[in-house]
Amino acid sequence: MDDLITSPSNPTIKEIRRLKRRRQRDATGLCFIEGIQPVLRALENGVPVEAIISCPELLRSEVARQAVSRAVQRGVRSIGVGTAAFNSLSGRDNPVGLAAVARPRLWDLNDLKISQGSVLVALFEPANPGNVGTVVRTVDSLGGSGVVLMGRSADPFDPSAINASVGTVFSVPIVRLDGPLEFMEYARDRGVFTVTTSARAPNDLREARFRYPIALVLGSEREGLPSEILDAGDMAVRIPMYGQSTSLNLAVAAGVVLYEVAKDLPRR
Amino acid sequence: MDDLITSPSNPTIKEIRRLKRRRQRDATGLCFIEGIQPVLRALENGVPVEAIISCPELLRSEVARQAVSRAVQRGVRSIGVGTAAFNSLSGRDNPVGLAAVARPRLWDLNDLKISQGSVLVALFEPANPGNVGTVVRTVDSLGGSGVVLMGRSADPFDPSAINASVGTVFSVPIVRLDGPLEFMEYARDRGVFTVTTSARAPNDLREARFRYPIALVLGSEREGLPSEILDAGDMAVRIPMYGQSTSLNLAVAAGVVLYEVAKDLPRR
Repeated sequence: MDDLITSPSNPTIKEIRRLKRRRQRDATGLCFIEGIQPVLRALENGVPVEAIISCPELLRSEVARQAVSRAVQRGVRSIGVGTAAFNSLSGRDNPVGLAAVARPRLWDLNDLKISQGSVLVALFEPANPGNVGTVVRTVDSLGGSGVVLMGRSADPFDPSAINASVGTVFSVPIVRLDGPLEFMEYARDRGVFTVTTSARAPNDLREARFRYPIALVLGSEREGLPSEILDAGDMAVRIPMYGQSTSLNLAVAAGVVLYEVAKDLPRR
Repeated sequence: MDDLITSPSNPTIKEIRRLKRRRQRDATGLCFIEGIQPVLRALENGVPVEAIISCPELLRSEVARQAVSRAVQRGVRSIGVGTAAFNSLSGRDNPVGLAAVARPRLWDLNDLKISQGSVLVALFEPANPGNVGTVVRTVDSLGGSGVVLMGRSADPFDPSAINASVGTVFSVPIVRLDGPLEFMEYARDRGVFTVTTSARAPNDLREARFRYPIALVLGSEREGLPSEILDAGDMAVRIPMYGQSTSLNLAVAAGVVLYEVAKDLPRR
């Protein structure tokens, strides 16, 4: 490892820091990954990592140090930085001293592998990157097959999305589509049953009977789903609600519906 | 309304801003509430509001303006502020111009009303205030009866907890307890069935049969539940997992288990 970069205003550090802005990520195709789990997941899942940033004073994890060594042996660029420089990159209260710059991949809709047991989650214009990351983590945990982001969606490679996903944005297939209807047409063509969610839907989630493969379609935090998507779905369900808030957090709603839909699949 | 406070360094503004720190909230018993829904929920639920802070340049909602007028007629202090002063208080990207200072109430365990259909959620040392707020919102939406916070828990009246709860921290009964076992003893004494959650629990959530009234007990984001709580519970369940991340976000996990537990209750 070369000498440490100690200054937060070092040009390399400044360039990395700019990746926290979506415009810079969109312009370069790169993202900034912070934390041991997310960096290791990117490496394990073959995401092209352009550089690993580690801070020897902060990085205590032996597992992480060894993973960095192996990556460097494979030719990944390593950037050693001091604590002040690392803190200037970090979005955390207690930085652990490991980060990376990588070139994340999005999937094409037609490259998704659909089998009889596939469960997709499609989100229309989610605004909060933390919600997007949490949904991806939930899809990973509950055995979903991929996430489709429709319209002006938050960036799944925003630092807070990566963080909320615990790095699963690098293993779960993610598709990004401009408009609302391309996915609905794809699903109809492929025989994927589409379940939309809405507070005013006729079917109670607890009593709904599903067909598979299946896609769950959820709307934005504020607006829900537009009528063109509701009209194009095969079934509309509502989660029974009782309280003052009359809605669940988007990631919680996705978790509840995904759990209900996935529970009857053959055990994997 | 008096003249507007325009300076972010005005002493009143500084004092309000200090309420973003937990130490100041603990010392004063006050909290800072931002946003239309949270402020209206606090007013509607009879939470003692010490002052309403509104920024005429930013506040567009007629409903909110009327609610402020009614509160002022009832004697609530109103503080009018300029945009720069309001922005210095705000934790949001797009401040809407309404906030308040209030004295939130916690409940005593013995004041919780337990009936045959009660569903409580107890969290042991949740670290993230956003998770606490999201769990409270979920408990409200899915018909839970209250939230119990055990040990060194994040503050349910942290601005990000209030925000994530959409203000339901002011309507859902919240109890705070120092140790891990007081709640388990309470539940046993009152005939409340306790379900603990753990990745290594013997019972699959999908097949578990519950008794009511019931309490769901979830651990911290990093550590899960300590063995003393697991040992004291009536049943331990796991959510079936398939992915690389092998765990759900705490609020998503609480939502999934609460949904499953509440679905068989008589329709309310």
